[in-house]
Amino acid sequence: MGIDSTVFKGSVDGGIVQGITHHDEPVDNQVLVRITHSGICGTDEHYKHSDMVLGHEGVGVVEKMGDKVTGLKVGDVIGWGYTHKTCGSCEECLQGAMYCLTRERYGVSNLHQGSFGSHAVWDASFLFKIPAGIAAEDAAPLMCGGATVFEVMETYNIRPTDRVGVVGIGGLGHLAIQFLAKMGATVVVFSSTDSKRDEALRLGAKEFYATKGVKRFEMARLHHLLVTTSVQPDWRPFLKIMRPTSKIYPLTVASGTMDIPFMGVVDQGLTIQGSSVASRAVHRKMLEFAAEHGIRPIIQRFPLTKSGIQEGMAHLREGKMRYRGVLVAQRASL
Amino acid sequence: MGIDSTVFKGSVDGGIVQGITHHDEPVDNQVLVRITHSGICGTDEHYKHSDMVLGHEGVGVVEKMGDKVTGLKVGDVIGWGYTHKTCGSCEECLQGAMYCLTRERYGVSNLHQGSFGSHAVWDASFLFKIPAGIAAEDAAPLMCGGATVFEVMETYNIRPTDRVGVVGIGGLGHLAIQFLAKMGATVVVFSSTDSKRDEALRLGAKEFYATKGVKRFEMARLHHLLVTTSVQPDWRPFLKIMRPTSKIYPLTVASGTMDIPFMGVVDQGLTIQGSSVASRAVHRKMLEFAAEHGIRPIIQRFPLTKSGIQEGMAHLREGKMRYRGVLVAQRASL
Repeated sequence: MGIDSTVFKGSVDGGIVQGITHHDEPVDNQVLVRITHSGICGTDEHYKHSDMVLGHEGVGVVEKMGDKVTGLKVGDVIGWGYTHKTCGSCEECLQGAMYCLTRERYGVSNLHQGSFGSHAVWDASFLFKIPAGIAAEDAAPLMCGGATVFEVMETYNIRPTDRVGVVGIGGLGHLAIQFLAKMGATVVVFSSTDSKRDEALRLGAKEFYATKGVKRFEMARLHHLLVTTSVQPDWRPFLKIMRPTSKIYPLTVASGTMDIPFMGVVDQGLTIQGSSVASRAVHRKMLEFAAEHGIRPIIQRFPLTKSGIQEGMAHLREGKMRYRGVLVAQRASL
Repeated sequence: MGIDSTVFKGSVDGGIVQGITHHDEPVDNQVLVRITHSGICGTDEHYKHSDMVLGHEGVGVVEKMGDKVTGLKVGDVIGWGYTHKTCGSCEECLQGAMYCLTRERYGVSNLHQGSFGSHAVWDASFLFKIPAGIAAEDAAPLMCGGATVFEVMETYNIRPTDRVGVVGIGGLGHLAIQFLAKMGATVVVFSSTDSKRDEALRLGAKEFYATKGVKRFEMARLHHLLVTTSVQPDWRPFLKIMRPTSKIYPLTVASGTMDIPFMGVVDQGLTIQGSSVASRAVHRKMLEFAAEHGIRPIIQRFPLTKSGIQEGMAHLREGKMRYRGVLVAQRASL
């Protein structure tokens, strides 16, 4: 019994490899999910050399469940993001955090993802019911991109009275603008050129600044700065517009060291806040907030096939994605 | 009327210059202080090229007051640390913060210090009454060193249940160990060699690690890390012993950029928290806590004269201070 699932993995040379994985019948708290959509995230690039099923913005339909699953039923539309094996007993696990002390860092061996495929089997505790108001294809980019930016707002207490900067308008940035605007914050957007100005304002930005070649921004200072660009920005002009004791969130995946001027941080009591994944409690609030306020990603669709994945990932790599790619299972009627 | 005060300033070539400054009679909320002691702080090095009176760990006796001063009387022993001109109306000023939006950064023009001298005139709002249990010479190092480390503990919510690392045993570090131990935290001390091990344990450390050449520490992970060394440490071994979502406080004054590995911070949700001066509310709590728990700096005394200042600053610069230098006014009977 069980099911043979089509999966798309990374490989040593970085090419996408199509394969078959056998899943046993779900038992206990397990759920067999038929995948209908998956977002494409910049982080997929970082795993494409790994022999693992890629994709961590999964959405699908519950097909079968173990006998201990509660709160879900066959046919439910659910989603999931990055999940890490947890020890279940360290301080972080007990607090419900997604970070577990048993891992040294995000490593392949500790990482669960696998939404580039036809099916997946998951522990029900890590699945999120998609609210009725959110289409399955729109839910996918919320599973990582949406959760990543909302985690910052919720966990680090961004207030409706705050001036909040968003650097970069991409998969994360275009969602951050919408969430922040809907919570009443003053959203200040930075992008390299003016090309996305109108889009930013339409999404809810109050102010827009092109950054290319700018050494000094003339503006009221900011309480928070979410940095969603794919490389570290020149931090110096940004340090000059941060309020004392304000917070910077580098959500970029970058190598090397922080290029942030040391005394600029110490002197003004700034916080550099690392943040990468949302706890499940925050993830759930994010979905409810998105449903309540009609927050939807702007997506480009690609078929959930080997060539569709290749095309979508290339599109993202080349900076052409407006603003999140979603792979659509070809048999999906959703 | 008024008083001619002896002062010790920096100068273009970095030498200490003795001079005379005339203070008018104190009016309104002003207090004329006869200085009895001043701590010597590493930061004094950074101002020795400035034509300004040095010193920001002042302790003295109230000699005269303007008619609007309340809560102080002639003869009271008071202290003060760094103070910055404040606009009085920005968000930070209204919250009582020491950071004011009107300054771009700590600059000479915005900085009040001046404890290397015979007298000073201060706004009473920025003076702290020294609790009876603290000797004047012991109070001086608390005005900057003590306040700087206590600010971190109080403002960023270090808990008695936390494992807290202190890197470096100097003016700040040896006070941090005592404060943390007295609040019940588990104090883990790092120093380049074993030479200060016994002292660290005596001050309240539970664990001690020599860092020189060490690539990996074997220990339970930390919730907080206070870095009090005079240069940035090699951050890599420290990142490996930080718990997910733990906090690092670089209290070092250093040039250049943060040498902290970027993904080590983002991946584990670490906080890099800049912090430099305490709000007055925290400063006051620090003094009360020190008095209550008998926390005393370990000091070396130098005369509050030109040659005494030169000798003390050289002692600190050469790494010989155990652990805070205090200048003592030669006529002081305290």
